[in-house]
Amino acid sequence: MSEPTPLRLLGPGASAPPERADAARNRDALLGAARALVDERGVGAVTMEAVAARAGVGKGTLFRRFGSREGLMAALLDRSEAQWQADVISGPPPLGPGAPARERLHAFGRSRAATDLAHADLVRAAGATRQRSYAAYAFTAMHVRLLLTELGVTGDVPLLATALLAPLDPFVLDQQVRREGLPLERVLAGWDDLVRRVVEGG
Amino acid sequence: MSEPTPLRLLGPGASAPPERADAARNRDALLGAARALVDERGVGAVTMEAVAARAGVGKGTLFRRFGSREGLMAALLDRSEAQWQADVISGPPPLGPGAPARERLHAFGRSRAATDLAHADLVRAAGATRQRSYAAYAFTAMHVRLLLTELGVTGDVPLLATALLAPLDPFVLDQQVRREGLPLERVLAGWDDLVRRVVEGG
Repeated sequence: MSEPTPLRLLGPGASAPPERADAARNRDALLGAARALVDERGVGAVTMEAVAARAGVGKGTLFRRFGSREGLMAALLDRSEAQWQADVISGPPPLGPGAPARERLHAFGRSRAATDLAHADLVRAAGATRQRSYAAYAFTAMHVRLLLTELGVTGDVPLLATALLAPLDPFVLDQQVRREGLPLERVLAGWDDLVRRVVEGG
Repeated sequence: MSEPTPLRLLGPGASAPPERADAARNRDALLGAARALVDERGVGAVTMEAVAARAGVGKGTLFRRFGSREGLMAALLDRSEAQWQADVISGPPPLGPGAPARERLHAFGRSRAATDLAHADLVRAAGATRQRSYAAYAFTAMHVRLLLTELGVTGDVPLLATALLAPLDPFVLDQQVRREGLPLERVLAGWDDLVRRVVEGG
């Protein structure tokens, strides 16, 4: 989940003092301001103007850094996915290492569903394509395969992982939980039951 | 899976004799010509010119009927999906009714996978969006839910159906079988094993 290379703000010799001051501002500070606004107001209500004002920079700086509102939202999404992946790889158990594989698998389902739901608006605002979200999907697929293997599940493990991941698909979850109002706990109970069938089936 | 309403060829009073002759040609005949060419040459090699020549009409007639090459491919796809659905609803067993539910489920997996693979190029050429392919997906989801219920599977049947359908996703299959060269039989064996886990798990 590499972030897009930040755009160069100004070529050598082209910089005027106010631009240089802007250029020195931290990309993370801009993303932090955007994140805070998204948390407060929701993705839909966050304009480039508001983010720029919150970060204390000009709107032009924000556009030069991220290209567009979509680009800014994509960068926020990348940062959040990277954080979640870090939690899976080296965060505390049971999502992170140290818990039994079965427990990690259930923790993964809960955490991934919550992350998908939290990201739904951001994904839309980032204009994420199937290709774009594939990187995030590939990480989850690899993680589930590893856990199934650790659990001694035999058979076509990649296919079983594909099946396990389907009910956690962001579009499926968003439809069920946010549009149809199905309680998330019910979806997760169904998912735990699916895990049981797949894992205990051999 | 309703086909898009055919475009009116010519308004009253605007028709000249050669146009009227074109207008009288059967939509099915145009689609039949397109189908034959697709079967012979593959989707990528089929131009509107070639379809028009095969059907013995002018290119303009084809464009007026289907709007664009995408529109023609979408109409072919719709016709093929409708035929497949008819086979499921009222064709011979084990895909159609009359066989035990478990046998129908396995026949469904084989038939759906073959259909998805056969449709892959057509779907791309039709510019099918997620929304567009949703109608086809909804039919398969309903069918799998009904078979699972008939088999006495308890639990969250829609979620289990979602999991079962995931490995049959056209994009997943196309990637595995056509790009990575995994034998279809191996994918289907893995799918049958997944069915066993889900069905026999309670």
